[in-house]
Amino acid sequence: MHAYRSHTCADLTAANVGETVRLSGWVHRVRDHGGVLFIDLRDHYGVTQVLCDGDSEAFNALEKVRSEWCIRIDGTVKARDPELVNPKLPTGEIEVYVRELEVLGAAEELPLMVFGDQEYPEETRLRYRYLDLRREAMQRNMALRSDVIASMRRRMWDQGFREYQTPIITASSPEGARDFLVPSRLHPGKFYALPQAPQQFKQLIMVSGFDKYFQIAPCFRDEDPRADRSPTDFYQLDLEMSFVTQQDVFDTIQPVLTGIFEEFGGGRKVDKVWPQISYKDAALWYGTDKPDLRNPIKMQVVSDHFRGSGFAIFAKLLEQEGTEIRAIPAPGGGSRKFCDRMNAFAQKEGLPGMGYIFWREGENGMEAAGPLAKNIGPERTEAIRLQLGLGKGDAAFFLGGKPKAFEKVAGKARDVIGEELGLTEKDRFAFAWIVDFPIYEKDEETGEIDFEHNPFSMPQGGMEALQGDPLEVKGYQYDLACNGYELVSGAIRNHKPEIMLKAFELAGYGEDEVKSRFGALFNAFHYGAPPHGGCAAGIDRIVMLLADEANIREVMMFPMNQRAEDLMMQAPSDPTSDQLMELGLRVIPQD
Amino acid sequence: MHAYRSHTCADLTAANVGETVRLSGWVHRVRDHGGVLFIDLRDHYGVTQVLCDGDSEAFNALEKVRSEWCIRIDGTVKARDPELVNPKLPTGEIEVYVRELEVLGAAEELPLMVFGDQEYPEETRLRYRYLDLRREAMQRNMALRSDVIASMRRRMWDQGFREYQTPIITASSPEGARDFLVPSRLHPGKFYALPQAPQQFKQLIMVSGFDKYFQIAPCFRDEDPRADRSPTDFYQLDLEMSFVTQQDVFDTIQPVLTGIFEEFGGGRKVDKVWPQISYKDAALWYGTDKPDLRNPIKMQVVSDHFRGSGFAIFAKLLEQEGTEIRAIPAPGGGSRKFCDRMNAFAQKEGLPGMGYIFWREGENGMEAAGPLAKNIGPERTEAIRLQLGLGKGDAAFFLGGKPKAFEKVAGKARDVIGEELGLTEKDRFAFAWIVDFPIYEKDEETGEIDFEHNPFSMPQGGMEALQGDPLEVKGYQYDLACNGYELVSGAIRNHKPEIMLKAFELAGYGEDEVKSRFGALFNAFHYGAPPHGGCAAGIDRIVMLLADEANIREVMMFPMNQRAEDLMMQAPSDPTSDQLMELGLRVIPQD
Repeated sequence: MHAYRSHTCADLTAANVGETVRLSGWVHRVRDHGGVLFIDLRDHYGVTQVLCDGDSEAFNALEKVRSEWCIRIDGTVKARDPELVNPKLPTGEIEVYVRELEVLGAAEELPLMVFGDQEYPEETRLRYRYLDLRREAMQRNMALRSDVIASMRRRMWDQGFREYQTPIITASSPEGARDFLVPSRLHPGKFYALPQAPQQFKQLIMVSGFDKYFQIAPCFRDEDPRADRSPTDFYQLDLEMSFVTQQDVFDTIQPVLTGIFEEFGGGRKVDKVWPQISYKDAALWYGTDKPDLRNPIKMQVVSDHFRGSGFAIFAKLLEQEGTEIRAIPAPGGGSRKFCDRMNAFAQKEGLPGMGYIFWREGENGMEAAGPLAKNIGPERTEAIRLQLGLGKGDAAFFLGGKPKAFEKVAGKARDVIGEELGLTEKDRFAFAWIVDFPIYEKDEETGEIDFEHNPFSMPQGGMEALQGDPLEVKGYQYDLACNGYELVSGAIRNHKPEIMLKAFELAGYGEDEVKSRFGALFNAFHYGAPPHGGCAAGIDRIVMLLADEANIREVMMFPMNQRAEDLMMQAPSDPTSDQLMELGLRVIPQD
Repeated sequence: MHAYRSHTCADLTAANVGETVRLSGWVHRVRDHGGVLFIDLRDHYGVTQVLCDGDSEAFNALEKVRSEWCIRIDGTVKARDPELVNPKLPTGEIEVYVRELEVLGAAEELPLMVFGDQEYPEETRLRYRYLDLRREAMQRNMALRSDVIASMRRRMWDQGFREYQTPIITASSPEGARDFLVPSRLHPGKFYALPQAPQQFKQLIMVSGFDKYFQIAPCFRDEDPRADRSPTDFYQLDLEMSFVTQQDVFDTIQPVLTGIFEEFGGGRKVDKVWPQISYKDAALWYGTDKPDLRNPIKMQVVSDHFRGSGFAIFAKLLEQEGTEIRAIPAPGGGSRKFCDRMNAFAQKEGLPGMGYIFWREGENGMEAAGPLAKNIGPERTEAIRLQLGLGKGDAAFFLGGKPKAFEKVAGKARDVIGEELGLTEKDRFAFAWIVDFPIYEKDEETGEIDFEHNPFSMPQGGMEALQGDPLEVKGYQYDLACNGYELVSGAIRNHKPEIMLKAFELAGYGEDEVKSRFGALFNAFHYGAPPHGGCAAGIDRIVMLLADEANIREVMMFPMNQRAEDLMMQAPSDPTSDQLMELGLRVIPQD
């Protein structure tokens, strides 16, 4: 017989009754029923009930085992009494009578129980991650993550993509976030950097003629801590294609993601139609470039109804350039209580408040209520109701000013309204492409123009478009939103060196700077660069959505804590003086 | 029609004649045949001949294109004249008459030609890697690497393994080589390290109950340069299993590798029987722990024949303890010229020389020749011949002393003899497991005992074995040799904390040191650790063998040069003073 097991703890059924078997696993739970010991023996695959009474030579030894000891048992498979069969367990028809026991690994007193649902502080869970990971939910999450990534690879291969590895120890490339640096020993005083993303490499792979690239790519950003973000690294499904348009990229990634969400979504609805919404429309309709389309609420501009109206605040506001009044329709929100709560929400978010109107059953049928309705009068109120398609029992909220100033809160209010009124569908994955991102944005304080997004995107209209107002230039640049999260980001790249130079010039970067910062790419574009584009999908986020987890650490095997420390491995730690000397570095004493 | 192509450059056949098509790709070669321009248009998939004469509107524009310009053409598919059909090309039946041309990316004068076989200095190739990678051999090597890794994954999944990602930014773990360090910004003065291998993590994954783990794992070692090694990182097929014996690990990896070599070996013979050879026997028979078994030569101990013989050098040598005389049989090497050349080889390798005997046709039939034969006389000479199974036309070489001192040269001599005499089979992959590695070795200079290999291996015989002579302790530790290279290394791990402590104690490490250096693993072993083991296969090396390349840079997309510089990306580079300040570091000026 094999040294450790003839079967896993998920294998045995009534068909094995009478067989002598060997099992190995962990003691999940011990129960002592008056001289008979019952142990749930657990391995990665399942649980088998083993038992022992005083007639067995193993009894005395088995009495000593405790939770989470790793043991091997030899025994005989017995059918359970019909009334003791557990139909929920694949091995529920049988139990194993223990004849021999070997302790493979004993356990000290546990800082964290594997059995049961007790909650533990995150510090404990991370310090004893090897115990935490034994818990059923963590086993499930890790298996899910692994299976999702495997499925992604299969789907990419099936579409003719090959995975190519790009360097991890490489050059610093300022792409927005902060680099992790790696000091060079052979070149003391010089540093490598870990890639924030394989962006430049995947573009260079296209220039190298590979046509279709993908990679499950680790990305490194020295981020300040946040619950849904790893402070060090995260994984992307990174892809790039040559000779493609934006729609080709969409047509490539959509079936991959649809397939993944259907395969692992546990029956939750997966939208097949992915609308393409311009960045501008998304801001107007949803107050965000990552809208949650499970929520049917769509905001609208209602400025005209307030222009010159009796509601002086809005009327005056509209006299300023660049201002707008927008309405958030709230079907079913037609109560003063709800409207006041939402008004309070807006105040908490830093706005003066949200005006509202709601429609209720009055003495003469439906009537509009709320201070705003009174101020602007019945005609305007009715015109608003008709524009928004609302009726009795519904409400509408109003925000005014320069859109940039209130859009974000409007978006949040839309989320809360959808949630509180039960409008946001559960158990559904709703996707939307956000397209036509502006290439540039203006820094409100300095008035300077900078890249809004990724500096490597092709401007729509090419060189010609760059001759006009930079703030009007849109890029072939897109995000995929799912349930309020950004899942994918990508672009058709700017592969023409002269357009690249011009694009950077508008953002205030001279030719020398482009050459020094993105020299490899810039040089490569002078040797026959193909048009190309691609995208990157956030794997951790996808797994979080599928596992219904809000914390990235629930879907990573060995995460850092939020202070970027690995409590189990004790990282980061002090270097030795030899190490520092070899690297030609000195640590500056901190105050 | 699609913006860039209706077909790839490998698609069109006689079936497409008459169609209007659009192709994109690179100008591989231009020929001007008196007013008719022929262009081999190349993309990732193939080459299509396109042509144009003065009747086409595209003629003037097409006349201007040069090698490696990226272009798009529209045209009509025509059948080639029967005598011009190229049966070697999938598209060889047709050509495309160009009606329209778009230059997608022009190319400056090329520092490196893609077409043809011209050799370029490595510096040029790495600086312009995006051009170098367009060459046919590099396209093939990169595709091979990608396909090998994909196949490995498929084969591991099929065996029930899941891939789990382990941290890349983690703790320094002294496993023999030098760590790359990563300074922490949130904890100035402290450093992370990049993993030399996921060794500790994969063992922790076993303690976490996952049963079967694998990973295509990037490993980081700050190595001094060598041609067949990357100075920064390399990839392993890393795997680990719980509740297994050494043989289980062999039975898992052997079908994966056999499958890979058969799938990608291009018809070369793949040995199905993998002998298990002890470390000791391998040293004796082959002079190395990574023998090339395509070479049938097996060395033998022939001390007895020289003890007290007339060959004083060996006879005297044998009076010292620990010395031996070993013979390298050389079937077919029976000429003085060959024997002298091998003797010179040994001298070049730093030995006084290699004695030899060879057997030739003499006046009275076969006679033994060479100075050694004369010294020891015909009886002993004949006994040696019989022991080695040699005959007329054969030779034997002799090395004496303490085996450690000459084994390595003996192994090299065996390689050269096998090669020069045509004994080493070509077009074959020959594998052997090297087993029973010693756990410890003695430092010849200091006399101190240290780990010979991996400190995490389980000693054969467990705790009991550690009570005796450490140098006699063997481990459940193994390497796989293939054609003279180490392809795989692995072990059954030491999962018992008390045995771990004792094992480290023998190598001079106290409990505190074990706890501080391998604390996570040591702690984890106190909470129910399962017996486990695994191995890691060197992916770069496997691809090198399959691609028949001697330089690792031929099978990596963007390698460093041998000074650990990325010439294309300009890494490593100077940090900014802001970066250094954030990290709390100062660079020590170098002399």
